[in-house]
Amino acid sequence: MLAKIYVTLKKGVLDPQGKAVQYSLESLGYNEVKDIRLGKYMEVRLDDVHGDKAEARIKEMCEKLLANPVIEDYRFEITSEDM
Amino acid sequence: MLAKIYVTLKKGVLDPQGKAVQYSLESLGYNEVKDIRLGKYMEVRLDDVHGDKAEARIKEMCEKLLANPVIEDYRFEITSEDM
Repeated sequence: MLAKIYVTLKKGVLDPQGKAVQYSLESLGYNEVKDIRLGKYMEVRLDDVHGDKAEARIKEMCEKLLANPVIEDYRFEITSEDM
Repeated sequence: MLAKIYVTLKKGVLDPQGKAVQYSLESLGYNEVKDIRLGKYMEVRLDDVHGDKAEARIKEMCEKLLANPVIEDYRFEITSEDM
């Protein structure tokens, strides 16, 4: 199983890294960029876990380690396809 | 327009950060994790740019700043929906 996890900062949480990238883009001439927010993307490969069980395990991992639930949101999708 | 950009390390490129996360997960009892690769996820909001033009601009930004084409792959999708 392959789980794709997306972690993003919650709305309202300041994203200084995103601002820095935005200023860099501006200095390169990309003035159409209104806002940019940075997040994390993770690909987790699981052995011998399927369906609901896999989903529950991934949710646990996100809550405990992969995301900070205080300031971050996460979402994930689980596929059998191996990229 | 909202562009969602995913940047991942190319296949074969070592991912020490991913390995560190994997060991942490193991130490928490998640032994089913076979592999984990970390990447970046970005949400870029664009003003007054649409369609092919937006796609071309985002591609340029990725090549020049947002991704390192030597070791990273990127892909993106452009939506009009504002999240």
